[in-house]
Amino acid sequence: MEDLTEGPEGIRLSGETSRYVARVLRLASGDPLTLFDGSGWEFDSTVQGIARGRVTVRVQGRRRGKRAPSVEISLGLGLLKGQKSELVLQKAVELGVREIRPMVTSRTVRTVDPERAEQRVVRWEKIAREASRQSGRADVPKIRPVASFNQVVTEAASFDLRILLSERAGQPLRAVARGIEAPTGKILVVAGPEGGFSPEEETLAVGHGFVPVSLGPRTLRAETAAILGVGLVQFEFGDLGELRRTGDP
Amino acid sequence: MEDLTEGPEGIRLSGETSRYVARVLRLASGDPLTLFDGSGWEFDSTVQGIARGRVTVRVQGRRRGKRAPSVEISLGLGLLKGQKSELVLQKAVELGVREIRPMVTSRTVRTVDPERAEQRVVRWEKIAREASRQSGRADVPKIRPVASFNQVVTEAASFDLRILLSERAGQPLRAVARGIEAPTGKILVVAGPEGGFSPEEETLAVGHGFVPVSLGPRTLRAETAAILGVGLVQFEFGDLGELRRTGDP
Repeated sequence: MEDLTEGPEGIRLSGETSRYVARVLRLASGDPLTLFDGSGWEFDSTVQGIARGRVTVRVQGRRRGKRAPSVEISLGLGLLKGQKSELVLQKAVELGVREIRPMVTSRTVRTVDPERAEQRVVRWEKIAREASRQSGRADVPKIRPVASFNQVVTEAASFDLRILLSERAGQPLRAVARGIEAPTGKILVVAGPEGGFSPEEETLAVGHGFVPVSLGPRTLRAETAAILGVGLVQFEFGDLGELRRTGDP
Repeated sequence: MEDLTEGPEGIRLSGETSRYVARVLRLASGDPLTLFDGSGWEFDSTVQGIARGRVTVRVQGRRRGKRAPSVEISLGLGLLKGQKSELVLQKAVELGVREIRPMVTSRTVRTVDPERAEQRVVRWEKIAREASRQSGRADVPKIRPVASFNQVVTEAASFDLRILLSERAGQPLRAVARGIEAPTGKILVVAGPEGGFSPEEETLAVGHGFVPVSLGPRTLRAETAAILGVGLVQFEFGDLGELRRTGDP
């Protein structure tokens, strides 16, 4: 548990988590609290005290988290302008993606400054942690380093299903789902930047086993397509269409 | 066509549309252009000229727009904090809603200032026009005046299907879709503000024929639930799962 440190008086939460517990959740000594460790475990805990901005808790027991997604969806995301990549990241985490692979594609408008790349990974990891916590996920999705579209596509052989969100003729997602008999444990969804993928990129992806999928007759903005792409894949193959369990928040 | 005026030299577009045509699309004299009139018609036109910031076009013919959504989805949206209502509005238009009904619910955080309400309608109508244009829709969704949750729920009898996005136990959307035999031409989706609906509100809605629908085991932010709710309803009942037609942009 990276943001916890164990001491004689219990487990001391990180500054960021302490602030969330004390100021947002407004918990006090004796209040119950469920902690998530980022790899799928949940810990039943009790707040022991708050001192110098850090919350101390005592852990009573642990169990496997129930709210980890039932399929593993990775999102290959063409970097978007402004704060739009961050918006997609936050929503994709809520919708249960396991991993984000930021991509530079032929139509990427945003220039990728190598010096700021590290800062971005730190910021993205923070957004992923916050979105995981907010949505009650017991795990935190991985943020991969920025890669080229070619690299993401050519290294996708380990996925059971590879989906490219296409602005051109693509199959409806439901037809793709109906055509599948093999289990689809690991799914990669690639979403383009503003302007979408080039015909050459789509051809390359199809050559590597990607299925172009259409999101209907209207033109969606890049960030809408990415969010909906993840949501619909989670709905068709994962748990977004499932019943909410008793005891879920 | 509200933003067009007809003159001897052809039809003069509004300032807003002219800027879009000249600066974003970068069209010049002789370029073809398809105009949408906001009620479902498309007009094949040619740019005649640009003078004093206004574009003049000549219309060759008109046809019924092909990209109007195939079911009529209305979204009852609990007003959200900051710019989040506007984000949902933009995405909902891309996803094909016909109408937005902003709602004040028991957990609405945002205060509704009557003096600014009119400004907001103007701003929302602009966002709806822009999102329609961007997505290639031939119609512009209606923005209704802000109403109370009770009002929206009790005046929903004309809808064929009424869906309440619930954070509590709700049915999976697919089960709702399977259980329906009657045609579902008009669908109302109501989405709560931050904090969701109160138990009393859900009970009231169920009493008026609303089906509570679950969006899976994770807690979605209010804006994510609203966007996904519209997207999934369009996917299950509408055209989001359809094949993209040849000739679509």
